[in-house]
Amino acid sequence: MQFGVIGSGSWATALAKILTDGKHHIAWWVRNGDTIQYIRQRKHNPHYLSSAYFDNSLLDMYDTVQQVVAKSDVIIVAVPSAYVTAALETLPADALEGKKIVSAVKGILPDTNQLLHEYLSQRFQVDVHDYFTVLGPCHAEEVASEKLSYLTFSGLDEAAAGEIAAYFHNDYINTVVNHDVVGAQYAAVLKNIYALGAGIAHGLEYGDNFLSVYIANAADEMNRFLQRSILHYPPGVEREPINYTASVYLGDLLVTCYSLYSRNRMFGNMIGKGYSVKAATLELNMVAEGYNASKCVYQTNKEFMVDMPIAATIYKILWEHLPAGEGFGRIESTLM
Amino acid sequence: MQFGVIGSGSWATALAKILTDGKHHIAWWVRNGDTIQYIRQRKHNPHYLSSAYFDNSLLDMYDTVQQVVAKSDVIIVAVPSAYVTAALETLPADALEGKKIVSAVKGILPDTNQLLHEYLSQRFQVDVHDYFTVLGPCHAEEVASEKLSYLTFSGLDEAAAGEIAAYFHNDYINTVVNHDVVGAQYAAVLKNIYALGAGIAHGLEYGDNFLSVYIANAADEMNRFLQRSILHYPPGVEREPINYTASVYLGDLLVTCYSLYSRNRMFGNMIGKGYSVKAATLELNMVAEGYNASKCVYQTNKEFMVDMPIAATIYKILWEHLPAGEGFGRIESTLM
Repeated sequence: MQFGVIGSGSWATALAKILTDGKHHIAWWVRNGDTIQYIRQRKHNPHYLSSAYFDNSLLDMYDTVQQVVAKSDVIIVAVPSAYVTAALETLPADALEGKKIVSAVKGILPDTNQLLHEYLSQRFQVDVHDYFTVLGPCHAEEVASEKLSYLTFSGLDEAAAGEIAAYFHNDYINTVVNHDVVGAQYAAVLKNIYALGAGIAHGLEYGDNFLSVYIANAADEMNRFLQRSILHYPPGVEREPINYTASVYLGDLLVTCYSLYSRNRMFGNMIGKGYSVKAATLELNMVAEGYNASKCVYQTNKEFMVDMPIAATIYKILWEHLPAGEGFGRIESTLM
Repeated sequence: MQFGVIGSGSWATALAKILTDGKHHIAWWVRNGDTIQYIRQRKHNPHYLSSAYFDNSLLDMYDTVQQVVAKSDVIIVAVPSAYVTAALETLPADALEGKKIVSAVKGILPDTNQLLHEYLSQRFQVDVHDYFTVLGPCHAEEVASEKLSYLTFSGLDEAAAGEIAAYFHNDYINTVVNHDVVGAQYAAVLKNIYALGAGIAHGLEYGDNFLSVYIANAADEMNRFLQRSILHYPPGVEREPINYTASVYLGDLLVTCYSLYSRNRMFGNMIGKGYSVKAATLELNMVAEGYNASKCVYQTNKEFMVDMPIAATIYKILWEHLPAGEGFGRIESTLM
């Protein structure tokens, strides 16, 4: 298999490192020509995960997506959900024919509330059986320092998911395979909402006892939502029983909620301390993923109809001016 | 209801604070007469949770268990599991007749591997329907500083559990009631083993990505064990379905595993760094609860027959000289 990597941010750079550490050649889309030159000369990405060094003989870098797609059998999409459509829109409609797609996108596409495979199916006729995800609790920084991490490869075609996973397995990456390609994507979205909420709780000066109750109940709420994600399974596909305590669900929720340095947590902390969304965005010079995710999930839940007091309240705090303290007062009364 | 509190350690002191903050009189067993004098004069426990102050008009302190039991309808047992039998052995066999018992004991009784209600039934003919537990993710320090915490009251007689819980509810304590008095006790034992293991992992220099995978899988293993705790339900009692993501199960596991200052974590950290159990015990001047718990659970699991590679491996590291690195190498291969 020839892998192509779309994206050159922190997580894309980590995935490029994992593949090349396994001595696999990759085609890599790095939009900026200067960055390509830099990596050729200095063997690391100057902007992201700069402590990860590359064997340049394994890198074919291109500044257009088309070139990478043309060279590859398996395309790893590793750009933030807000930029996915912009990155892929220049491709002709048949560009992905015969390719396998592996999504590392942790979010729902804004505007349409689609999961990536739903967009790819519509725009490029990608069959969901050729679509996979690589997700799980994996801070890119720990990949750079080669701390043992677990990546989960999900796909309706589990055998193919296993074949792809084998390329990523090395002495610091263990791989897990499951079939729940739909639920795994929603889990990756939900965890950012709950992590942002953990930040709000911290800003409101709740303690560790409360945080653990909050996260346990968030896990429960997430499970209820994921159960209903059967609605986004392709027609005719039967879903196997799913263990929601596996690392791609509960593990990723934990690492995201307990990470003190995540953007969701920092952003939420400011909201909890009384900053407006606008002021927090200006101060931190970014919007946390959980902010848009809360809206996407709130809207998706009009279809799913799940009782999710935590995520719904966080949405109202972020988008409908509900004071954070009042919102968490409501959440308190629902926890068990 | 007249409450009696048996024990004057950190958690017993926190429970005494919660009840008296609710303006409830308590009878309190404080073994040491000098400590009783100190509390009378200075209004706080000099040895444990000394930042918690008491309204002395609500405290009747006694230096024998008998006096407290005689004065009370509801007896809260809040001594470490290793000292429970010593604390209660002087009581006559009929001393607990007509009383309700609320256990705050977080452990299996050593030697016999009994849960407290099994011992009380044997020694004092306490009916399991008069037995309750107060458990959940609750560091005593956060009770002292009045940070919102959740306590779960479990009892086969759920209505009575609810009545008892009402005495604890206040502006910083929310209460939850469930019927799973057996499973809640085992959860309180298991979490200490997994927290000790989290310490070992830290000592072995695993990172946050791994820790989240480890804890998610520990939650899964705990759920399997708790399912089998039906074996210790009294004959004829049907168990209702249980939500293991509730705070008394998953929440308590999280707060214990992620607490950097817990004794289990510190003890495990030294084991991970290569200290022997003996050296770690000498250095820290204590044995962590997870150490004995790992043996009790290992032995109990000869009856339960649950697949629990994490707890079994921690047992072997602590009790059978399995090198920590080798043990965690085995655990790694079981995680998903």
